[in-house]
Amino acid sequence: MMIIMHSGATKEQVAHVIEHIEENNLSAHTIVGVEQTIIGAVGESHTVPTSAFETLPGVMAVQRISKPYKLASRQFHIEDSVFPLDGFTIGGQEIPIIAGPCSVESRSQIIETAHAVKEAGANALRGGVFKPRTSPYAFQGLGEEGLEYMAEAREQTGLPIVAEVMAVSQVPVMVKYVDVLQIGARNMQNFNLLRAVGDTRTPVLLKRGMSATIEDLLMAGEYILAGGNERVILCERGIRTFETATRNTTDINAVPVLKELTHLPVVLDPSHSTGHYNYVAAVARAAVAAGADGIIVEVHPDPAHAISDGRQSLTPENFTKMVRQVKSVAEAVDRCLVPAKVPAHG
Amino acid sequence: MMIIMHSGATKEQVAHVIEHIEENNLSAHTIVGVEQTIIGAVGESHTVPTSAFETLPGVMAVQRISKPYKLASRQFHIEDSVFPLDGFTIGGQEIPIIAGPCSVESRSQIIETAHAVKEAGANALRGGVFKPRTSPYAFQGLGEEGLEYMAEAREQTGLPIVAEVMAVSQVPVMVKYVDVLQIGARNMQNFNLLRAVGDTRTPVLLKRGMSATIEDLLMAGEYILAGGNERVILCERGIRTFETATRNTTDINAVPVLKELTHLPVVLDPSHSTGHYNYVAAVARAAVAAGADGIIVEVHPDPAHAISDGRQSLTPENFTKMVRQVKSVAEAVDRCLVPAKVPAHG
Amino acid sequence: MMIIMHSGATKEQVAHVIEHIEENNLSAHTIVGVEQTIIGAVGESHTVPTSAFETLPGVMAVQRISKPYKLASRQFHIEDSVFPLDGFTIGGQEIPIIAGPCSVESRSQIIETAHAVKEAGANALRGGVFKPRTSPYAFQGLGEEGLEYMAEAREQTGLPIVAEVMAVSQVPVMVKYVDVLQIGARNMQNFNLLRAVGDTRTPVLLKRGMSATIEDLLMAGEYILAGGNERVILCERGIRTFETATRNTTDINAVPVLKELTHLPVVLDPSHSTGHYNYVAAVARAAVAAGADGIIVEVHPDPAHAISDGRQSLTPENFTKMVRQVKSVAEAVDRCLVPAKVPAHG
Amino acid sequence: MMIIMHSGATKEQVAHVIEHIEENNLSAHTIVGVEQTIIGAVGESHTVPTSAFETLPGVMAVQRISKPYKLASRQFHIEDSVFPLDGFTIGGQEIPIIAGPCSVESRSQIIETAHAVKEAGANALRGGVFKPRTSPYAFQGLGEEGLEYMAEAREQTGLPIVAEVMAVSQVPVMVKYVDVLQIGARNMQNFNLLRAVGDTRTPVLLKRGMSATIEDLLMAGEYILAGGNERVILCERGIRTFETATRNTTDINAVPVLKELTHLPVVLDPSHSTGHYNYVAAVARAAVAAGADGIIVEVHPDPAHAISDGRQSLTPENFTKMVRQVKSVAEAVDRCLVPAKVPAHG
Repeated sequence: MMIIMHSGATKEQVAHVIEHIEENNLSAHTIVGVEQTIIGAVGESHTVPTSAFETLPGVMAVQRISKPYKLASRQFHIEDSVFPLDGFTIGGQEIPIIAGPCSVESRSQIIETAHAVKEAGANALRGGVFKPRTSPYAFQGLGEEGLEYMAEAREQTGLPIVAEVMAVSQVPVMVKYVDVLQIGARNMQNFNLLRAVGDTRTPVLLKRGMSATIEDLLMAGEYILAGGNERVILCERGIRTFETATRNTTDINAVPVLKELTHLPVVLDPSHSTGHYNYVAAVARAAVAAGADGIIVEVHPDPAHAISDGRQSLTPENFTKMVRQVKSVAEAVDRCLVPAKVPAHG
Repeated sequence: MMIIMHSGATKEQVAHVIEHIEENNLSAHTIVGVEQTIIGAVGESHTVPTSAFETLPGVMAVQRISKPYKLASRQFHIEDSVFPLDGFTIGGQEIPIIAGPCSVESRSQIIETAHAVKEAGANALRGGVFKPRTSPYAFQGLGEEGLEYMAEAREQTGLPIVAEVMAVSQVPVMVKYVDVLQIGARNMQNFNLLRAVGDTRTPVLLKRGMSATIEDLLMAGEYILAGGNERVILCERGIRTFETATRNTTDINAVPVLKELTHLPVVLDPSHSTGHYNYVAAVARAAVAAGADGIIVEVHPDPAHAISDGRQSLTPENFTKMVRQVKSVAEAVDRCLVPAKVPAHG
Repeated sequence: MMIIMHSGATKEQVAHVIEHIEENNLSAHTIVGVEQTIIGAVGESHTVPTSAFETLPGVMAVQRISKPYKLASRQFHIEDSVFPLDGFTIGGQEIPIIAGPCSVESRSQIIETAHAVKEAGANALRGGVFKPRTSPYAFQGLGEEGLEYMAEAREQTGLPIVAEVMAVSQVPVMVKYVDVLQIGARNMQNFNLLRAVGDTRTPVLLKRGMSATIEDLLMAGEYILAGGNERVILCERGIRTFETATRNTTDINAVPVLKELTHLPVVLDPSHSTGHYNYVAAVARAAVAAGADGIIVEVHPDPAHAISDGRQSLTPENFTKMVRQVKSVAEAVDRCLVPAKVPAHG
Repeated sequence: MMIIMHSGATKEQVAHVIEHIEENNLSAHTIVGVEQTIIGAVGESHTVPTSAFETLPGVMAVQRISKPYKLASRQFHIEDSVFPLDGFTIGGQEIPIIAGPCSVESRSQIIETAHAVKEAGANALRGGVFKPRTSPYAFQGLGEEGLEYMAEAREQTGLPIVAEVMAVSQVPVMVKYVDVLQIGARNMQNFNLLRAVGDTRTPVLLKRGMSATIEDLLMAGEYILAGGNERVILCERGIRTFETATRNTTDINAVPVLKELTHLPVVLDPSHSTGHYNYVAAVARAAVAAGADGIIVEVHPDPAHAISDGRQSLTPENFTKMVRQVKSVAEAVDRCLVPAKVPAHG
C-alpha cells in the first residue's frame, strides 16, 4: 500500500501516518520526493482497509499495489485451467460453441433447436427457464417445466445444458438438471448467489456485468472460487457505453487482458454484446481471433416469433455459417473447434 | 409501435408487415416518406414483443412510443406521492435527511452515531448489516445482531431505521426490524428480490444501478409497485463513467428528469455519488437545489477507523455543517427540512 | 514517479530499472514488499517519459504521483483567481450570468435577445457566429457579420460579449470584437487553437470536452496559461455517458473537484449539459449550490424558430424565472448575483 | 420526421403542429394511438430543424427517421469504395498494414523503422511530425524537418507515408509530403480542418473521436466527402469507457456496423485502442476477423527510449509476429495481406 501525502503535508503529519502504519503491524518506508512524500506500508496489508489512512490529516491518496484477488489470479496459478465438461474440455486447445434460444418457450421449440444447433456444430445447449426481464409484465420463463424440456433435449442430442440461475432458492433444482450454471450480467454482484453457486460443484459460467470492470469480474469469480468450486468460466458479453448503434459494446480487449490476468477460461457472447443478429458472426470470429476459449450464442428456429431477444438470435442457417467461419479462424490461430459429439444418452 | 422500413423495402415487404400487425390484433397506419416507409401499429401493443417485427424482411428498426412503465409513471398519477414515515413525510414539502455509518460495526458505534446524527438534524438512521462487498475476504456485516443494535438505537433516539436487504431470504427478518428496506445499486435488477420486497408493505428505498438508465430505474420501481407495495423511494447514487476523479458521477440531471416522469419521491446519496467526504456537502446542496426530496448520507464518528467507506464518510462535525447548508438551500427553493423529532420511544 | 515491478521480477531486473533511473538523473528508492517491489524515482521526473520505464523487463506499471499541470494548480496559487470583466468580476463573491442564443441569426434577433436577457438580469451576452455543426449541411453561422451585430447589441445594452472561436485563423478578427473568447467542447484538445488564444490577452471560456476528464480540462487550461494569458474560465457542460434521457450528463461533482484542484473560476452550462429547456433551471440552481462561479445559458426569443438548439433554449420568461431562483440559491450559499449593470456605452 | 405528442395533448395542439408542418412545406400524416398521437412529417424534411417542432405545446419528442449523411452512406453507394494507394489498394480484397513510430524523433530512427517494418511486411509508414500532446510541456514534434526524414524513408523503402495534420495552416505543407493525411481523434470534430482536407485530393485517414458515436464519425467523413475528396478511410481507435485496464476500449462492433452503413474502407488501430503492446496482436487479429480493411499500428525500434507512446509500441520482432498472425486470419476470412512491395523510388 502506498500512502501519498499532500505537497504541503507537515513532518508531524508524516510521523502520524508512520505511527498509524506501525499500529497496523506494517512497516513504513518513506520516500521524500521533490514535491511530495510517499510512504510505503509493507506487510499483510490486505487485512488493513485503505480508509485507515485516507482520512488522516495530510494524506492525499492511498493506493493498493497488489491485486485484490488470489484464487483467480494467474500469478498463483500459472497454467491455464482446463475443465472437462460433458464430452469436451474448455480452456484448452479446443473451442466449444454453446448455442440455443434466449428462452425455453415450449417443449417442441427447445427440442427442435437442440437438434438444429447440434447438427450445425454446437457442443452445448443454452436456454433460459428463469428469465431476468426488465419489465414485470414480460414473460418470466417456464421454470422447472422448462428444465424438464431441456433435460429431454439433452437426452435426445447428448448436448450438455447451460441455464441461468437467478436466485439462491433456485440453486438446488438447477443443479439437479443443468451441466453448467449461468450467472447473468445483472447478478454478477449478487454476492449471496455467487456464494451459493460457489458451494456447489457444478461448473459456473459467470457473465460480466454491464458496468463491471475486468477487476470486478475477477472479484466476482473469486467469490465462487473461494467457496471451493474451481470450475468458473468467465464471459464477456458487452459493456454499457455511450454508443447506441449496438445494444452493448463488445470489450474485445477484455479477452487478452483476462488471458493475462487469470488462468480461468474466457468465453464471449456476441449475441448480447452486439444485440443484432447481423453483427454476431463478425464478433464471434473476432473473439476467437483474440484468444477466446469459447462462444455462447443465441439461436432460434424462428426469430420473428421468439418471445425474447429475437433481434439478436441467429437462424439455424446463419448459425451454421457462423460455425464454419469460426472454425476457419480457430485454425488460423492454431486452435480448433470441438469435434461433433456422438450422442451419449440417446 | 412504429415500424421503420429500409429505404429499399419492397411493396410486398410492407404488405407482409401490415399482415403481421393485423395478426397481432393491432391496426396498421402507413406513412410513405420520401426515402422510407413507416408503419404505425396501434392498439394493445404492450403485449406484442418488438421482435415480432424486427426480424421481418425489409424492417430497419422498431420503436415503442409509449413508456414501458405505468404504475411509476406520472402520466397515470399526476400528483406527487407523499409517504408518511415515522414522524415525517417524504415526497412533500419537507426534506428528510437519512444519515449513519456504511456498516453497523458494534453496538456502541451505531448508538453513538445515532445520537450524533440526531443532534445534528438527521430524521432517520441508516446502517448496513448485510454488506455487499466486492471482495469475499472483506467484512460482510453483523447480520441480525446488527439489526438488534439498530433497533436499540431507534429505541434511544426515536429515529426510524433504514438498512439494505441483499437477498430474498433476508426479507422476513428485515421487515421485523427496519422502517425502510434499502435495495442496493448492485441488486437494482435482482428481480426476485424486487418482487419479494414488493410483496411486503415496508417502504423501499431503491438505489439506481451503476449503469442503469433512468428508465431501467423506473422499471425496477415498477416491479415493486406491481407487487402492491406503493411506498417506493428512488435514489440517485451516481453512475459509472470514464471520469476517475470521483468514485462515481452524480447524475444531477436525473433529479428533474425523474420528477417529471414519476410521482415517486427522489432522494440523492452524495456519499456514494462522489466517494469523497470533501465533496459531499456541495453535492447535497446541489441535490436539494435541483429538487430532490431527501438526502441519504454516510456519517461515522471516526472515519479513519471505519471498516468500510471511511473515505466518503462525514464526521458528525462536518455533517452538522452540511445540514445547516442544506437547510439554507431548501428554504431558497421554498422547501424546508423536517423539524427535529421528539423521541417517540425513549 | 513510482515503478511497480511484477511479483516475479528478478533482482537483475530491479537493478536494471535502478540503473535506468539514475541514467535519467533521478534518484531511486526501493521498497521491497511482501509480493512486489516498488521503486520510487525522485527528482525532476517531469522531463522523463513514463515509457522510459514501462517497457523495461519486469516492470508492471509506472505511476506519476505529482499533477501534470502547474499554472492551473491551486497548489502553486492558493487564492482563487478573480478576473475583472466589463463591469463585474468572475471567480469572487458575485456570480455572473451569461445568456443569449446558440447562434446569432440576424441583427434583430440578437439585439432583441440582448435587451431581453439584460432586463432579466444577465451580465454578459453569448452568441455563436462560427458554428461547429455535426452536419456539413447545417447552418454554419453568420461569421464577421454576426460579430458586428453582437457589437451593436453591446453598444445598446452595455453587456460584454462572449463568442466561440473555432479556428486559429479566426482569432485576430474575434479579439477585435469579443470580450471573452469561447473554446467549444469539440476543440478542447485542438492544441494549436489553445496556443493561439493563449497568445492573446482576451479572457477565455474553455469548455470541457464531452469525454475529457477533469485532468484533461486542466491540462487544456494549462496550454492557455502557458502562453501567458492568465484569464481562463473553465466550463462544465456535460459529459457523454450511457444515459440517453438527457443530451449529456451534467458532472456536478466536477464543480467541487475543480474548486479544490484549481484557482481558476468555474462556470456551468446547463443548456448543453441537459439538452432540454425543461431541466435548465434545476441544474442552474444545482450548479450555484455546488459552488459554481457563473452560469452560461441559452436564451432565444422564439425557440420554436431557432436555427439551432431550440430544444434547450429558454424563453426570456423562463430565463427570468431561472435568474430569480438562482439568485435565491446564491444567497443561501453566501454569495450573490452581479447587480444589474448601468449601460456603459448606450 | 415523426412528431410524438404527449398523451394529454389536446386536439388544438395537434392541429397547431399540423399547421406548422404545412408551413414548412411538408405534409402531415396523423396516427391516433391508444395513448398517444404521432404525426409524420413527410417531404424535404432535411432542411427543417427538429426544434421547429420540439418546443411546440403538446409535443413530447421529435425523431428523424432518415440518416443525416448521404455521401458516406451505403444506401446511395452500394459497392465498397476501393482506393488505389501507392502500389496497393484499400477497401478491396487485400488488407494493408500501416506501421511506424508514434513520433518521428530523428532521421535515423524513422529510416531504421521504415526498413524494419517494410521487411516485416508493412505496406505504408506512419509517423507523427506535429504531435497533439495533452501537456504543453511535452515534445510537440519535429515539424517540417520530420516530413523531410519521412520523405527520405519513403525514397529508400518505397513505402507511402501517413502523417497527422493538426491544423488548417499545416495542410499545404503536409500535402506536399504525405500520401495519406491523418486526422487525429481529438480533431475529428474540428470542422474547419475537415473542410480543409476535404478541399485537397490527398486520401484522408479519419480517426474516430474518443467519445464520438459511429454516426458522428460518419458525419465527420461526410464533411470531407462534401468537399469533393472521395478517398476517406475511417479508423476505429478505441472509445472512452469506464474500463481502466486498457487505455481505451476497442469498439470491435464498429467494424461490422460501419461495413453495413458505409462503403468507405475501415481500418483499426490496436495500439491506441488498447494502449499496451501486449494486447496489440490479439486485437489486430480480431479486427481482421471482424472484417476490417486494414491495420495501423505503432512500431518503434526501442520502445523503452521512445519519446511518446512507448508502452503501446511493438518492437520490430513483435510486429513481425503480428503480421504473420494477421496474415493467417486474413486468409481464414477469404482475404489476404498486400504482397510485399518492390521499391518504386529506390
